[in-house]
Amino acid sequence: MVTDSTSPLARLNELNISLPSPASPLGNYEAWTTVGTLFVTSGQFPWIDGDLKYTGKLGVDITPQQGYEACQLAALNAVAQLQMAAGNDFSKLKRIYRMEGVLNVAEHYHEHPKALDGASDILIQLFGERGRHTRMIWTNTVMPMNSFCLIYIYAELYPEKSE
Amino acid sequence: MVTDSTSPLARLNELNISLPSPASPLGNYEAWTTVGTLFVTSGQFPWIDGDLKYTGKLGVDITPQQGYEACQLAALNAVAQLQMAAGNDFSKLKRIYRMEGVLNVAEHYHEHPKALDGASDILIQLFGERGRHTRMIWTNTVMPMNSFCLIYIYAELYPEKSE
Amino acid sequence: MVTDSTSPLARLNELNISLPSPASPLGNYEAWTTVGTLFVTSGQFPWIDGDLKYTGKLGVDITPQQGYEACQLAALNAVAQLQMAAGNDFSKLKRIYRMEGVLNVAEHYHEHPKALDGASDILIQLFGERGRHTRMIWTNTVMPMNSFCLIYIYAELYPEKSE
Repeated sequence: MVTDSTSPLARLNELNISLPSPASPLGNYEAWTTVGTLFVTSGQFPWIDGDLKYTGKLGVDITPQQGYEACQLAALNAVAQLQMAAGNDFSKLKRIYRMEGVLNVAEHYHEHPKALDGASDILIQLFGERGRHTRMIWTNTVMPMNSFCLIYIYAELYPEKSE
Repeated sequence: MVTDSTSPLARLNELNISLPSPASPLGNYEAWTTVGTLFVTSGQFPWIDGDLKYTGKLGVDITPQQGYEACQLAALNAVAQLQMAAGNDFSKLKRIYRMEGVLNVAEHYHEHPKALDGASDILIQLFGERGRHTRMIWTNTVMPMNSFCLIYIYAELYPEKSE
Repeated sequence: MVTDSTSPLARLNELNISLPSPASPLGNYEAWTTVGTLFVTSGQFPWIDGDLKYTGKLGVDITPQQGYEACQLAALNAVAQLQMAAGNDFSKLKRIYRMEGVLNVAEHYHEHPKALDGASDILIQLFGERGRHTRMIWTNTVMPMNSFCLIYIYAELYPEKSE
């Protein structure tokens, strides 16, 4: 049974999901940073080892199920960045308090929040109560590398002992 | 006379405006959260009791006056969430320091910041100096439920006595 | 030689760049604010003394080089706001930890992150390690005043001595 004390990595195993390797930024910026105890990412893509898995527009090139999976995968890329920030130790994570998503969506298609649930659901599956978050949603018709989505997470870490 | 010490609820009365009931999120996320003393909302719609009052595009389906009213109403929905977070006691609010808005706007129409003033103005009318905020503005051609706008607020609360 | 201890104003001189005057907001909001030690701006335009230098769409009206310059100029407008917040004393700046950009980009053009590098590069040129930031990128087809871009920065200041 998955409880809040189950480690996120054990939950990944149970879900038969691998965490992608943390990706490098596309330009002259950092993939993540912390300010005080707050952690923020730059945009995370739905890719694995540099292979962008979902491109194009929801309702045209991307089915609802693919949209859901794409947001899940981009969220896992964000979790990989969080894992780096936490020095591979998720017990340093207090909570993920916000997730933001930009999606490319066909005009007159309004069910895109269900695609973004792919990101929301996996955060809660992995982190339980610590994964419960607010969120923002945007739609953009032009995306870097024609990616279907970009996901950002904001988390609170426990203060370092030495601080 | 309205002064900074007038309560936001008294000002609502003076303006003959009712605060909508706080709405539930559209997906697997929280309507609001706090991190330390900072309060953030998820996207707030221009609705009352589940009835979405403003849909479509500014400059096509939505007049400038309706755009202004829609942003005001969505901001009031955000204030309703803030009221919940403050346990119905706005004296716990230090200030609203940021408001963000996503609007659906016709191409070649560039006066949409005036619509977003509907959100800015009501925050300042209700909270006086405590409502003075920075803001972000975006335009998206596809919106959840075809809503004309989405409004987000970020506020600072006073620390809890027990902390 | 430019080192991290070179002042940002000296670097501007070396780059033969002038900082624009801080611009007023377009509506009923603040150009910047601080919450605790955190500084945030509202949207900053690529203008000098009220003259908007870059309007229209990247890939149609705006070349890649112009897009880069526009993002640089809007970032300098953000730095001018930061300078005000710091009372003209950049030694009060701990770091710029995030930069966000909204760009108007032609469909099927996906190289816009290189335009946003115009903002990223100048922050790092001026502030060295203190300028290394995460970032967000959006594309919007409708922009206030038909501006090509809007840039936002988020910084951490040193606590005031008296606090």
